[in-house]
Amino acid sequence: MEVITTVSEMRQKVRAARFAAKWVGLVPTMGALHEGHGSLIQRAVSECDTVIVSIFVNPTQFGPNEDLARYPRTLDADIRYCEKLGAHWIFAPSVEEMYPQEQLAWVNVEKVTEGLCGARRPGHFRGVATVCAKLFNIIQPDVAYFGQKDAQQAVVIQTMVRDLNFPLEIRVCPTVRDKDGLALSSRNQYLSKAERKKALCLSKALQKCRELIQSGQTNPDEIRRAVLPFFDQPEVFLEYFELVDPQTLRPLAEIRGPVLAAAAARVGTTRLIDNLLIDLQTPSA
Amino acid sequence: MEVITTVSEMRQKVRAARFAAKWVGLVPTMGALHEGHGSLIQRAVSECDTVIVSIFVNPTQFGPNEDLARYPRTLDADIRYCEKLGAHWIFAPSVEEMYPQEQLAWVNVEKVTEGLCGARRPGHFRGVATVCAKLFNIIQPDVAYFGQKDAQQAVVIQTMVRDLNFPLEIRVCPTVRDKDGLALSSRNQYLSKAERKKALCLSKALQKCRELIQSGQTNPDEIRRAVLPFFDQPEVFLEYFELVDPQTLRPLAEIRGPVLAAAAARVGTTRLIDNLLIDLQTPSA
Repeated sequence: MEVITTVSEMRQKVRAARFAAKWVGLVPTMGALHEGHGSLIQRAVSECDTVIVSIFVNPTQFGPNEDLARYPRTLDADIRYCEKLGAHWIFAPSVEEMYPQEQLAWVNVEKVTEGLCGARRPGHFRGVATVCAKLFNIIQPDVAYFGQKDAQQAVVIQTMVRDLNFPLEIRVCPTVRDKDGLALSSRNQYLSKAERKKALCLSKALQKCRELIQSGQTNPDEIRRAVLPFFDQPEVFLEYFELVDPQTLRPLAEIRGPVLAAAAARVGTTRLIDNLLIDLQTPSA
Repeated sequence: MEVITTVSEMRQKVRAARFAAKWVGLVPTMGALHEGHGSLIQRAVSECDTVIVSIFVNPTQFGPNEDLARYPRTLDADIRYCEKLGAHWIFAPSVEEMYPQEQLAWVNVEKVTEGLCGARRPGHFRGVATVCAKLFNIIQPDVAYFGQKDAQQAVVIQTMVRDLNFPLEIRVCPTVRDKDGLALSSRNQYLSKAERKKALCLSKALQKCRELIQSGQTNPDEIRRAVLPFFDQPEVFLEYFELVDPQTLRPLAEIRGPVLAAAAARVGTTRLIDNLLIDLQTPSA
């Protein structure tokens, strides 16, 4: 397992891989890897000749009052985990390596960034799109893997790849959950035992939402009303619970086809998100 | 000379070239080719194995009241010219091919786009940066050639390539001028005979500016005052005449090192730009 920390060495490595006609897969992460990341890495290993896991806590996607400083950094464990899963290289640059001077060029993705987390985290998706553009240009993968857990991020990146003609394919992999339903997230580490229980409000509300839709409910307001009690707990603050079009992320006035149910809540000081893609045509969604 | 009109065919061609370890050069143009473009193509042919000239009048870099509709389109002559100069492929996509759906992802370059043409053409450099990002991703050149004539554009693209880590090199080639000093531009075709004479105000003012700097003038205000009379003609409207840092494009308070003298003027209904890089260390600048 080789850990590469400079852009120039990373470029050299992938140029050699490309020259040998290898199929290169990238799993972009912020580290603190869990089985959610693991599922992406495993899929990449099964589909690609060369798998690169990037580990970079990207400062430009954190707001001034967010958790950049305390975001978990567990590089040694991450390296062992990637090795175990069969990834080939880790790209773990420093902030100075990725942003050696004032960053003046940014990728802005419109419309799909307006709602959900985009409305609550100004600049977040600009940072995400920009760092992914940088990683795609440095590593030039044939395919990059993202988690459905960050549904809006996946749509933003797919939109960027489509509109800027990046020569790669985005594959979005299902959310991995703990046995009790909690979606895996590096931020789950922040939760106390009591908070972890409260955090199930998200997955429970989404489950309830799916049941309601499966039983014929088509009115988003009714669904929202029905799930609100899950969040009615001390130290839980619901940021949003929305039913949107899975492609455009625009709120639906009526549920008639595929729907993305997406929620964000703060549990104590920890902000968590979760979502379900619900499509009655494909009941296992 | 092969003319390629679709993104997918262009990708296929360059993939094959890349696989054969060819060094790929791109000359991005809006067509209506003149000897200025010719100098870029010749340089590309002398330095690369495979030279692609893109010809695309990019609508997203024109403002609502600009000359998109009347911009000269001379594809047949352009093809013959590229062939004569030894270019290998022309990439001439339609607007629908480049923008098949509403464009949501944009590249914004800050600061270096604030002054000069950026201040007078809102959205122009966003369109330029975005279409270049698209072309770079479609063609994946090793090197792309731009003219010094569009000095701010060259800085914007260099900044984008640096900040987004595009895996290519930008080479900026000297402005080509007619015998009387007028910088070659596709928009010169708009000029009547009388206007063409008036249009020399730009190159004459820039020459005068260089002389003043060479003779020790360091005060930008004094220089501006001295060159204003060149623009004091009927049907000539000076948009700007500025002395800026060649890298940051910020106005200089005093001339102590390299300076970019840049001007824009309307002659009749035609908007023209010109510039000189003046560096007393390298007197032939």
